Amino acid sequence: MQIGLIGLGKMGYNLALNLRDHQHEVIAYDINPETTDKATAEGITPAYTISEVAQKLTGRKAIWVMVPAGEPVDAVIAQLLPHLQPNDIIIDGGNSNYKDSIVRAEKLKDQQIHLLDCGTSGGLSGARNGACTMVGGDPDAFASVEQIFKDISVEKGYLYTGRSGSGHFVKMVHNGVEYGMMQAIAEGFEVLHKSDFGLDYKEVARVWNHGSVVRSWLMELVENAFSKDADLSGIKGIMHSSGEGKWTLETALDMQVPTPVIALSVLMRYRSYEADTFSGKVVAALRNEFGGHKVEQAK
Amino acid sequence: MQIGLIGLGKMGYNLALNLRDHQHEVIAYDINPETTDKATAEGITPAYTISEVAQKLTGRKAIWVMVPAGEPVDAVIAQLLPHLQPNDIIIDGGNSNYKDSIVRAEKLKDQQIHLLDCGTSGGLSGARNGACTMVGGDPDAFASVEQIFKDISVEKGYLYTGRSGSGHFVKMVHNGVEYGMMQAIAEGFEVLHKSDFGLDYKEVARVWNHGSVVRSWLMELVENAFSKDADLSGIKGIMHSSGEGKWTLETALDMQVPTPVIALSVLMRYRSYEADTFSGKVVAALRNEFGGHKVEQAK
Repeated sequence: MQIGLIGLGKMGYNLALNLRDHQHEVIAYDINPETTDKATAEGITPAYTISEVAQKLTGRKAIWVMVPAGEPVDAVIAQLLPHLQPNDIIIDGGNSNYKDSIVRAEKLKDQQIHLLDCGTSGGLSGARNGACTMVGGDPDAFASVEQIFKDISVEKGYLYTGRSGSGHFVKMVHNGVEYGMMQAIAEGFEVLHKSDFGLDYKEVARVWNHGSVVRSWLMELVENAFSKDADLSGIKGIMHSSGEGKWTLETALDMQVPTPVIALSVLMRYRSYEADTFSGKVVAALRNEFGGHKVEQAK
Repeated sequence: MQIGLIGLGKMGYNLALNLRDHQHEVIAYDINPETTDKATAEGITPAYTISEVAQKLTGRKAIWVMVPAGEPVDAVIAQLLPHLQPNDIIIDGGNSNYKDSIVRAEKLKDQQIHLLDCGTSGGLSGARNGACTMVGGDPDAFASVEQIFKDISVEKGYLYTGRSGSGHFVKMVHNGVEYGMMQAIAEGFEVLHKSDFGLDYKEVARVWNHGSVVRSWLMELVENAFSKDADLSGIKGIMHSSGEGKWTLETALDMQVPTPVIALSVLMRYRSYEADTFSGKVVAALRNEFGGHKVEQAK
């Protein structure tokens, strides 16, 4: 089928090729026209404005939006709206906050436009070769574009999760779990690293990926990373994050769900941003105040 | 080759069948003679005392010990010792503490007996059909029985980890990682459970196992569990543990390695043992003392 695609970033570009491989006609727009040109050479139909995407689509429109969460999603929707008809479908395939998706779907419903909130996992290789998609929204709207999710996902890799917001909610929680799993794996390797057994981390990851209880895609990625840099001496341990772990924790706090591992995974990321901490200075100062314990002088 | 096997518990019994399938002659003893009889019917050579195991082995002996960690391992070794010759090999395939394995290997070295400490992962199906094994100890002793580890493990599923203790150390850390991964997965499902999206947990686990970042054997086991009991209403959330998570945390504390996720995973297990806590009473009482806040009366 025909599908519009707004946003040819790393995920969007790979998704465009994935859709094309499944015989869909992709009409794509990117904020950077050169990216759109590049996609054109790959068999993607170009559009140089958001309205051009809508204009090039015939019949009931389905437009996949793959832009950063927050204001960009609202901006794209606002630009699309004048060109849409009742029953048209916007798929937000990015990492929007599920609460935003609920509000957006409600607003669009007033204009009889459907918003499907689609959480997309699997990284760049997933977007290109088979992703994992979790989709919330109107069930009939979902059914009308189900083939798209089936095609771009690995076998058994898509799920209709229920009403609006549920797709991004399930994806958000997925990322919370991912934070915890990553931190658990990382802590294990730090214990190995601090030991004096002289272990080969790549080999440990390799054996853990073959028959052990912790075998997982993340462990395979760790094995891959160690195969390129045996002790990761080439990179810093600064753990950036893009928000879904924090949202999972905020949601858990709102629901009063005890999630200590997800919480500490988020907090350890923030800790990693700082070479030294003010809280560390406070504790050191207090130990000095009450016990005369030595403090390390700042240079 | 010929191999002695002490302990036909759940892991040992499956391991015996796995070894037999690979054309090894297994001479097995269990504390319960009926279990030994049952194994005999499966083609295992029976022994009804520990010394009988040693006596039935010819040439350089290799004896796999698969008994609970701690005193049982020492007891078995003490009973084996009078029947062993220099260069014989004891393989401790259980979940011994790596510090014990270092001490035992050192003591046995005085008598020219080799102890290989083998961490075994993969659960019962792994023991039966292909495990993941991490082996420490003398490299020549390892080389002489390497074929055994190769045979009982999945392809690429065994690793010589280095000097004595390293096999059980790597396995211990594996279990620490496992605790963290399990708690992360569990917390995610608890957030899903407390939401009002009415999600099908089995379906969520299924889609997460196909193309997502968190796909893993543990997620497959969770999917399996939900397929049998959709909301796990048939079981209690009491999380028993058998020690390796605690050891990982103790080791991390000794090495001063910050492992908050592994730590909280262990502590949440202990929290699950208690329906109510004394610390909860203390906090409730304090809030009442300073702010007159309501406390819930014990019945």
